Amino acid sequence: MSNSNYYNVTTWPIGDPFTDVGEVINSIIADIKDRQTATDENDGGKPGAVIYLPPGDYRLRTQVVIDVSFLRIEGSGHGFTSSSIRFNVPEAEWPDLHELWPGGSRVMVDIPLRDDLLRDDESQGAAFYVERSGSPRISSVEFSNFCIDGLHFTLDGSELPAENSYVNGKTGIYVASANDSFRVNGMGFVYLENALTICKADALSVHDNFIAECGSCIELRGWGQASKITDNLIGAGFKGHSIYAQNHGGLLITANNIFPRGASSIHFEGVTRSSVSNNRLHSFYPGMVVLAESSSENLVSTNHFLRDHEPWTPFLGVDNGRDDLYGILRISGSNNSVIGNHFSEVVDAQSIRPSGATPVIIRLAEGAGNFVSNNHVVAMDVRSASSDSCFSAQVDALLTTGASDGLAVTAVLVDSTSARNTILDSGNDAQVIADRGANAVRATPTVGFEAAEATQSSQGAGIPR
Amino acid sequence: MSNSNYYNVTTWPIGDPFTDVGEVINSIIADIKDRQTATDENDGGKPGAVIYLPPGDYRLRTQVVIDVSFLRIEGSGHGFTSSSIRFNVPEAEWPDLHELWPGGSRVMVDIPLRDDLLRDDESQGAAFYVERSGSPRISSVEFSNFCIDGLHFTLDGSELPAENSYVNGKTGIYVASANDSFRVNGMGFVYLENALTICKADALSVHDNFIAECGSCIELRGWGQASKITDNLIGAGFKGHSIYAQNHGGLLITANNIFPRGASSIHFEGVTRSSVSNNRLHSFYPGMVVLAESSSENLVSTNHFLRDHEPWTPFLGVDNGRDDLYGILRISGSNNSVIGNHFSEVVDAQSIRPSGATPVIIRLAEGAGNFVSNNHVVAMDVRSASSDSCFSAQVDALLTTGASDGLAVTAVLVDSTSARNTILDSGNDAQVIADRGANAVRATPTVGFEAAEATQSSQGAGIPR
Amino acid sequence: MSNSNYYNVTTWPIGDPFTDVGEVINSIIADIKDRQTATDENDGGKPGAVIYLPPGDYRLRTQVVIDVSFLRIEGSGHGFTSSSIRFNVPEAEWPDLHELWPGGSRVMVDIPLRDDLLRDDESQGAAFYVERSGSPRISSVEFSNFCIDGLHFTLDGSELPAENSYVNGKTGIYVASANDSFRVNGMGFVYLENALTICKADALSVHDNFIAECGSCIELRGWGQASKITDNLIGAGFKGHSIYAQNHGGLLITANNIFPRGASSIHFEGVTRSSVSNNRLHSFYPGMVVLAESSSENLVSTNHFLRDHEPWTPFLGVDNGRDDLYGILRISGSNNSVIGNHFSEVVDAQSIRPSGATPVIIRLAEGAGNFVSNNHVVAMDVRSASSDSCFSAQVDALLTTGASDGLAVTAVLVDSTSARNTILDSGNDAQVIADRGANAVRATPTVGFEAAEATQSSQGAGIPR
Repeated sequence: MSNSNYYNVTTWPIGDPFTDVGEVINSIIADIKDRQTATDENDGGKPGAVIYLPPGDYRLRTQVVIDVSFLRIEGSGHGFTSSSIRFNVPEAEWPDLHELWPGGSRVMVDIPLRDDLLRDDESQGAAFYVERSGSPRISSVEFSNFCIDGLHFTLDGSELPAENSYVNGKTGIYVASANDSFRVNGMGFVYLENALTICKADALSVHDNFIAECGSCIELRGWGQASKITDNLIGAGFKGHSIYAQNHGGLLITANNIFPRGASSIHFEGVTRSSVSNNRLHSFYPGMVVLAESSSENLVSTNHFLRDHEPWTPFLGVDNGRDDLYGILRISGSNNSVIGNHFSEVVDAQSIRPSGATPVIIRLAEGAGNFVSNNHVVAMDVRSASSDSCFSAQVDALLTTGASDGLAVTAVLVDSTSARNTILDSGNDAQVIADRGANAVRATPTVGFEAAEATQSSQGAGIPR
Repeated sequence: MSNSNYYNVTTWPIGDPFTDVGEVINSIIADIKDRQTATDENDGGKPGAVIYLPPGDYRLRTQVVIDVSFLRIEGSGHGFTSSSIRFNVPEAEWPDLHELWPGGSRVMVDIPLRDDLLRDDESQGAAFYVERSGSPRISSVEFSNFCIDGLHFTLDGSELPAENSYVNGKTGIYVASANDSFRVNGMGFVYLENALTICKADALSVHDNFIAECGSCIELRGWGQASKITDNLIGAGFKGHSIYAQNHGGLLITANNIFPRGASSIHFEGVTRSSVSNNRLHSFYPGMVVLAESSSENLVSTNHFLRDHEPWTPFLGVDNGRDDLYGILRISGSNNSVIGNHFSEVVDAQSIRPSGATPVIIRLAEGAGNFVSNNHVVAMDVRSASSDSCFSAQVDALLTTGASDGLAVTAVLVDSTSARNTILDSGNDAQVIADRGANAVRATPTVGFEAAEATQSSQGAGIPR
Repeated sequence: MSNSNYYNVTTWPIGDPFTDVGEVINSIIADIKDRQTATDENDGGKPGAVIYLPPGDYRLRTQVVIDVSFLRIEGSGHGFTSSSIRFNVPEAEWPDLHELWPGGSRVMVDIPLRDDLLRDDESQGAAFYVERSGSPRISSVEFSNFCIDGLHFTLDGSELPAENSYVNGKTGIYVASANDSFRVNGMGFVYLENALTICKADALSVHDNFIAECGSCIELRGWGQASKITDNLIGAGFKGHSIYAQNHGGLLITANNIFPRGASSIHFEGVTRSSVSNNRLHSFYPGMVVLAESSSENLVSTNHFLRDHEPWTPFLGVDNGRDDLYGILRISGSNNSVIGNHFSEVVDAQSIRPSGATPVIIRLAEGAGNFVSNNHVVAMDVRSASSDSCFSAQVDALLTTGASDGLAVTAVLVDSTSARNTILDSGNDAQVIADRGANAVRATPTVGFEAAEATQSSQGAGIPR
């Protein structure tokens, strides 16, 4: 039994952290619970503990089960390096590599795989599993500054090599029961089919993490409220979501840099009164941000969206199955605000699907009362656009041909199943496809706008505005 | 005397941290000062120290007095859990609860209460009190990753039970004298009448904390500049402010998730050239954000405001005394910018005060030259709106009745004592109440807007747009 | 040889951390490399290590050279205090000062100065130098929570005292080779000619640091992608940049509070598809934010810009050499978005250069297709504007004279070398100087706008707009 609430996995007498850190941590949690005997006398509580993992490789063969509040598990390094790049380096070159694996305080997830690699309950493959019934909800569990590495993707038989499959049945952290005031800070997640899945979160903070090369990165399931996902570097695989949320209210997603791939960068189902603002988003497919299943009263503002093409040979030809009419931002819901976003669409005009279609940037598919204002769409054919290193050629081209001539797009498409929307200054008249009798549209003025207005008003029609 | 600048309260030989951590920390501070004897020879300085609190319950009976720069007090867990919920659980059920108290590295504030529970100088009840006269200003004091718990609210005799009163004369941290480059990171504050009060701050950072169930959460008093309050989870009691600032310039409040209650979510007095941007704000009363006392040249942008009703039985009927004409956002000042915000107002039309009034969302009460543009107001009668779980019914209703038909509101009200404001695209013509001769107003277009324009131009000059 | 991956510089047997912490850290790095012998068997990696600096003064006489991934160097305090103020206090008063130097975990940079104080390769003067050739790129090096102090500025012979010169040939951290997933968190940098210079960064995070009183603060050179600079307090000297980036894509700069001086607050060269959003920016000179060298498709949104005058005697008369026509925000590039920013320009009308000129706020100097919308410009003559303490007088004046009467400015100037831009609601007709035949302009409505429109449309009378 410890005489302190500070534990170090390398000095704890039970188990071997290098062969199974899961067994070690579970025995520490048992010790914490044995020692927390306070009753309410003198306002004494059950303060939990901190478990420290110094930098090192810790194999995890036993799932850690957390059912105690105020537990902090912390390391000294998120330890990300790209396993995806490494596994796509020819094996003959591996001896020349400085290192082959992620590092820092690294938990190597090696729990027995289930028979069914294609998961239906990824909690079974979770390195850290949190569940507690009864009251109060489990509170203030913190994960900080260590690395959870799923080691290998393993799905054989698809068109891709197994290590590129994003499938291995492993989850980093799975929180099953209602929880309050959890924190996930400074963590690294890599090569997990699911990095972080949290059900029924209240006042959760997922902040300043590095979550990449995972099938799905952050999934908030069931329902939840008043949480934040802020200031993370995130990039999921082509099958999953970088951020997914279900039936949440008051969720704040801001200041994240979300890079490819990700079937969606952000996918909401039934999420209301939440914010997606001020993020940098980059993806290779349509459907970067999807507000589905009556997601309503959300604010999508001042984000930078870049959609371009997969540039990396191992994943050429892979996509999320959505065509270019789907919308970069797609909304099925009501009363959302889409304000002040920048969209860059840089695609090969010859690869647009359906062939010859005009790609859609913002699509209001269902709902009513959405407010879409002051969004700027820049679209280019990749054949005329350039790499960063010869950007000036592109600029020269733009100066010659006009900035928006690169690629014709529909800036906003309003389906007939969405109505009473307001679309302002988000595309010129031809770029906004909407029933003007069912939606309020003010097209972005184009060159010559004021001259036209001056002429118009000088001749006067007298129709009251 | 220590031979290191790293102190651990549980191993320091003077005092008992479990019976009075205040005495322990004060004796450590005395030791730090005794040992810091450097003169300017060889550029040697007075580097301060770190004082570590492992997870545990530390009663504080003596106020900690900090008058040394570069002191960092850190723990291993913010330890929040809801005391408010617990105290409203019938006492007979307490034995069934997993835990009764907050945890982590928990400082239990138990300093002698003053006779006057209704404070006039809350510094007396502060667990941590910082003051130093002379030059330079005290610098780089840091509070990190521990919990300050006020234990109980104690005001008897009001209509509410004492534990719901938000009054106990206790303050978490009080900084009395001018200070530079302070940091408050990763902390938890709970059940304090005032969580964090800082006078005369320069380049302060309050980042990634959990500050809830406190009378007031963050108060910046006196004056200050160039500070930031970012990425916090915050929620004050009905009597106080979640964030309050006075005579500050260049304050950046962003990426916070501020939940109820809070008489105001954010209240400025004489604050200039500051930003309230990109926050998620939720409150049960009008006056969520108040820019008072000539607060000017501030930017209020891309925030999500939700005002709805108190849902929790113990606080039904409690409010902040403001009626629905007060404004969700109220500005008494000049040259402020209010751009790109989303407002959701979900109230019971029958409970509006004054009865029959049209609720006001943005109210320009005094000043001149404010710029209010591209704000989206969604308003619903709670009787027709729904809980999250049956949101689709609401959406169906909206599709039938029109998104903005739920509840009539005044999107922007400009008083005659405010003039020369510019209001663009923030409400349709009927929703903006302002003297058009004294303010520039462009109403948000409504359905049929372009049709009218098209007719106009077809009868005018026929110049293609 | 250590038996752990946790190192403490004060207990490591080689070298003396107080006389040369560089030698100590280099010997620790050698030890780490000696001990990291894992091959790929059992998925074992090279996890790196953490090196801890407790609070204290550590002289650094030997440059630290880092060529190992997953190294974290951490302290317990960023330790900032203003050396600039101290060096401008008369020396006779120094004995009365509480402390003379920064503190916390403080690295005192004292490497031999090169002959050429005016640097051409500041990597030679770097306290921490990171370089590794070969594959993979060096990853996940972390700097956390300590102070790097350059001690003195040393350029004699200029008009300013040496300690005000911002020149000493010293750099805090210099990363020379391509790198991935680096983190710089919670650090303090002070009195360095260059604080943090990182070449070829991918997925870098520079978060929650205090970087001030340095010649240049953050420079991202060469090229890079998918990085973030978030939630920092930053302020460079008059010669350098608070943030500089070159040929980056997908860079997210948000939630920073950037104070003077800084020749530029943010300077981009050839940066594309990046975000500068939601920052608070304050400077004493024009050219606060510069998008140069075909910087394109960037989003500059919801920032608060304040440009006023140098108030501090030691730097009176110092500036960055740019006149008031240069633009507070200047863009040479295409397809950028400038949305929802607030600009406060508070200058002495009599000191405007060229004399009698109308200061320019946003200048589109070269390029095409930029979208400038919903920006609010407030300009005042400092003789009529007031200090914070008597702001009400100013407000009274505004109420009397009109908010925008204080100082005439050009809100947007479009040069003939920039075309096909869209400028909406960012200045009234007189404040937007652009070829209306080459750019789309919709002026911000002014008072009487609706009245005029009503009259206009009913009379069709050709009232000039």
